[in-house]
Order: sequence, then structure tokens, then C-alpha cells
Amino acid sequence: MDSINPNFRSRAGKRSLNPAELKAGILKGDRASLSRALTLCESKLAQHRELAEELLQGLMPHTGNSIRIGITGVPGVGKSTFIEAFGKELIEAEHRLAVLAIDPSSGRSKGSILGDKTRMHELSQDTRAFIRPSPSGGSLGGVARRTRESILLCEAAGYDVILVETVGVGQSETAVKNMVDFFMLLMLAGAGDELQGIKRGIMEMADLLLINKADDPKDPRVKLAMGEYKRALHLFPPNPNEWIPKVQACSALQKSGIAEAWEVILSFENQQKNKGYFEAERQRQSLAWFEESIGELVLEQVRSGSNYQAAFQEIQSLVKEGKLEAGVAAHRLVEKLFA
Amino acid sequence: MDSINPNFRSRAGKRSLNPAELKAGILKGDRASLSRALTLCESKLAQHRELAEELLQGLMPHTGNSIRIGITGVPGVGKSTFIEAFGKELIEAEHRLAVLAIDPSSGRSKGSILGDKTRMHELSQDTRAFIRPSPSGGSLGGVARRTRESILLCEAAGYDVILVETVGVGQSETAVKNMVDFFMLLMLAGAGDELQGIKRGIMEMADLLLINKADDPKDPRVKLAMGEYKRALHLFPPNPNEWIPKVQACSALQKSGIAEAWEVILSFENQQKNKGYFEAERQRQSLAWFEESIGELVLEQVRSGSNYQAAFQEIQSLVKEGKLEAGVAAHRLVEKLFA
Repeated sequence: MDSINPNFRSRAGKRSLNPAELKAGILKGDRASLSRALTLCESKLAQHRELAEELLQGLMPHTGNSIRIGITGVPGVGKSTFIEAFGKELIEAEHRLAVLAIDPSSGRSKGSILGDKTRMHELSQDTRAFIRPSPSGGSLGGVARRTRESILLCEAAGYDVILVETVGVGQSETAVKNMVDFFMLLMLAGAGDELQGIKRGIMEMADLLLINKADDPKDPRVKLAMGEYKRALHLFPPNPNEWIPKVQACSALQKSGIAEAWEVILSFENQQKNKGYFEAERQRQSLAWFEESIGELVLEQVRSGSNYQAAFQEIQSLVKEGKLEAGVAAHRLVEKLFA
Repeated sequence: MDSINPNFRSRAGKRSLNPAELKAGILKGDRASLSRALTLCESKLAQHRELAEELLQGLMPHTGNSIRIGITGVPGVGKSTFIEAFGKELIEAEHRLAVLAIDPSSGRSKGSILGDKTRMHELSQDTRAFIRPSPSGGSLGGVARRTRESILLCEAAGYDVILVETVGVGQSETAVKNMVDFFMLLMLAGAGDELQGIKRGIMEMADLLLINKADDPKDPRVKLAMGEYKRALHLFPPNPNEWIPKVQACSALQKSGIAEAWEVILSFENQQKNKGYFEAERQRQSLAWFEESIGELVLEQVRSGSNYQAAFQEIQSLVKEGKLEAGVAAHRLVEKLFA
């Protein structure tokens, strides 16, 4: 019980979970406090959740001062190498960078390939950067919530560039798109969209489409691919935020095109802030998250009711036997629960 | 009020919504009763819903005796012409065919392009076929529920082949896949997957991939496309139901390849029934639908509570102003609602 007592003072070997202490540590930029807070937010224990929410709430006035960047692309496109090169340029320019990840599959395989510190060796050794692997386990919704909270904690700790990484094959892109300001998609030239497993919907989300591994500036496939993607992007309806998605090439290996990608992000931020879209989009994201969370929590609440399991199983067995139509059955169960 | 009184007897100019009368009419195969029942199930009035559920429940023992076929493909692939040719062969072979549609966009555009009787002129004039446009308006979930109920009503009315049509560009495919036994995807040869807007995920769902408009049997593009799609399908993991998806060509215009497509469906049904997967999958679908409906109805119930709107708006405004973290806010609201 000690470890979840909010009044418990930290001592050697025991990690404090006192929200006030964690808050003070985070605001000082203390990495250990930040790590502990992230772990607290990832916990599924109800008592931990209460502490986590108290902490988040206390840090709210200190959040928001970053540019939140989503980055995706299929495995093999070179995301780690890109993030390493991109991150090093950023910290050399006095930025503080946090790298987070969303990988809903990491629960199954027990050990995410994303956010792995060994992939970004140099960056992980630099105190101006903070790398955190994907929270593991649970639904995409759960993983997304924890990543969303991680963004806020990192901002409170003074990181002004937040990268949220994901793999470009599933539904996690939509989750990331809904928690970042800017979304970039890494692709390869000459591989064909099919082979890259990139869905139209993901291309449509991108604010910057970056062709990585453009190591040879004379490679005709790069120009060809850039032309193709530009044409493809023109087919999509214009963004309501008036941003015209860019197509660029880079080589994370040769460290070319990296600064240019950052320039695009800065010009995006500038334009969006001037036009008032930046804050409006963040507000939209918060409200959408609020509504989604209500749905999840309401269901959780109802399912944890003492009479739920028995009533559910009784009616479920009638559905199984084909005696009750599924929708009618759901109606009956809900009527019973709220009677 | 008369029109929703279950004891109200039908009279000229007034349509009976009495579940017992509708049930008797449907079991006789009366098309007018079926149409009226479908309209009843599409109604959003709470009293209509009660009658609809009573009717569905009464018809449950008479449902299930059909093969449910989903059909998709982008606009222009020739779905209507295919369904017309396919349907005519079926009714000539003494089958009774119902054509339903899911088109969540039909609410917006006020007038669905799907299920339009003028598109399937000959079929719509034949009493052995029954064509119903997509229910309009509302969420995909709502449209899907109503289509699911339509399947049951059509089965009770004696239709033994149910076609559920959708457009191959959105999320409605997943909804259809989860309410049918067999899923077929119409494609064109030589158009390229990109141009056809077909996502990998949709190809992965197909039990039969049918290349339509193969009007010239010597067209090399047809053979090429068939080979390509066969190779693509081999890359997907094997189906748990042991079915190996087929790739075939047809010409709805020349009426070639239509009987062969039906043969594939019959051999699928036969194999799946022998191996016990057929009923197992239907049960899985019902249970999944049951669970999904619970979630929707619980939220509906909570949202319609007398104290919901005020509590929601109070907390939402704190989220809007950035004073309350979205997840924390949702937690507070739910605690308040269930206090």
C-alpha cells in the first residue's frame, strides 16, 4: 500500500508516487521524475489512475508549449535513422526533443520494436533528448490515451518538440493524427505504393510526404516519385486548414534534406498560428478525446456493475442459441441494467 | 397515435404496423408486408422500435435459411449490370433473390445511387426478386443495424439468396463483411489497384475476386490481372475457415462467367457447412453484433438522462478553455453521472 499512498515520502529504493513531488521534479526537468510519472500514467491500477489524474491536472498550465509531430512509414523506410538525424539537428539548435511511440502490437509480441533506445543510439545518450517506448498492451484506445498523456508530461518537463512515431500499416495512424499538430509520412522512391502497404487514407493525412533514402541526388526514381506523389496529393480535397501538403526528399544517412523538413514544419506552425487554426485544432482534438473517453468510461462503469456479468451471460446465451436477435438482445440487456 | 398502436387494424389508406399482421404477411411472402416491415425497422421513433423488435423476435425461427452474399467494388466496375445478370440466372434457377444495399453516404446526398431500382430494370420487374435501396441517414452503425434486420426479414419472407451491395471505398465493407457468409469483390483488369481505390484490407476480405467487364475472352490484360491478383491473395495469411479465395473473370454484359461465380459460392457454402464453419461464423457475427449494440445503447441511455446535458456542457467548457485535461474531464463526468 505504501507505494500508492500519495503522502508517502520517497526514500532510497522506493519510488515516490506523490503527485506534488512528481510535479515539482517534472517542472525542474528531472528525467527520473518524468519517467516515474509516465509509468504511473501507464498503470492500470485504479489508485494509480487517481494519482495520475491529479498529477496531469496539476501540470495542465505547463503543457502545450511544443510542436507535436506525428511520424509514420512502413518498417524498412528508415524511421529510426531519420529520427536520429532529425533529432540531432534539433538538439544542436537548442531544442529539447521527446520521442514517443504508439505500437498497439507491442503488447502481443512482448517488446516493442518502436521506441527502442538501441535503435537511436546517439540520441538516447543525449540528455537533451528523451526516448520512451510505446506503452504496451491493451486496446489501441488505451495505448493512445497513455501516449496522449505522455505528450502532456513531456511538455511540462520542458520538451518543445514531441515526435510521436507509429508504424504505417494499421489504425494507429488515425490515433496519432488526432494527437499531433503536424503529420509526416516517410516513403521510399521506386517501391510502389502497394509494396509499401500505404493506404490512401494515410497519405491523405500527411502534411509532409518525405521520400527517405534519397541518398543519390541524381537518382531519377526520386524525381519521378516526387512528381507522382505531388499529383496524387492534388487529387485529395483541400485541407480545411488551408495547408498544402508538401513533398520532399531526404537522406537520413547522408544527413541531407533534414533541415529542409524542419523548415516545412516551422512554416506550417507559423502559418497555422497566424490563421488561428493551430489552437482551434488542438481544442478540437481535446474535445474529441473528451467525448471518446466518455464512451469508454461509461461502458467500463456499466460492465463493472455487480449485476452486469450475470445479466450479460444469460442474454448472451440466448443470442448464441439463435433464440434472440442480437440487437433485440442488446436492447433487453440495457433495459434491465438501467431499470 | 393510431398508426403506432399495435392493436390497430389495417384499413384502406392506413398501413398496419401490427407485428402479428406483418408477421403473417411476411411468412406468406407478401411483398407489401415485407416493405412495410422494412420501413418500420428503419424508423427512429421509440414506439416503432418496440414494434420492430417484437416483429423481429417473432420471425427469428423463420430466419437464417439463405446464403448471404456481400458484393463490393468501386463505382464504374459494373455492379448493377453484374447483379442484374447474376440475379436473372438465379431466379431462372428457382431461387428467390433479395438485393439490399449499404451506403452510409446516402443520407448526405439525399438519394442513394445504390439499390436504385432503375439501375436493375429487369430484375426490379420480376416478382421473384426484391430490391431495397440503402436505409438512409445516420451513422454507419445505424445503417448497418437496419440492413442486418432487413436480411432477417427477407429470409423470413422466403428469399434464399440475399445480396448486400456496397461501394468499395469506405468503411462500409467491414460492416457488410460482418453480416454476410460470402464476400465478393468486383474489379477491372488493367486499371491498376490505385485507380480502383481498392484498399488491401478490402482485398483481404474477399472470398471471390471477380474481374468484371472481361468482355473479350482473348484480352491479355484479363489473364495478367488474374495472375496478379492470385499472387497478391497468396501473400495474405490463410483464412481460419480454410477457404482459399478464388480469382475469376466474368462479363456481365456477355453473360459469361456468371454461372461460374455462383458455382464458387455453392462450393463455399458446401465446404463451410461440412466443416462446421458456416454456423460458427454466423454465431460469431451475432455475438459481435450483440456486444457492439450494447455499447451503443448504453451510451444512448446515459446521454438521454435528465442530468446529462447540463453536466456534459459544464465539464466540456472546462476542456475547451484548457483548464481540464480531456481524459480527466471524462472521468469526472462519468463519476458524476454514476454517483
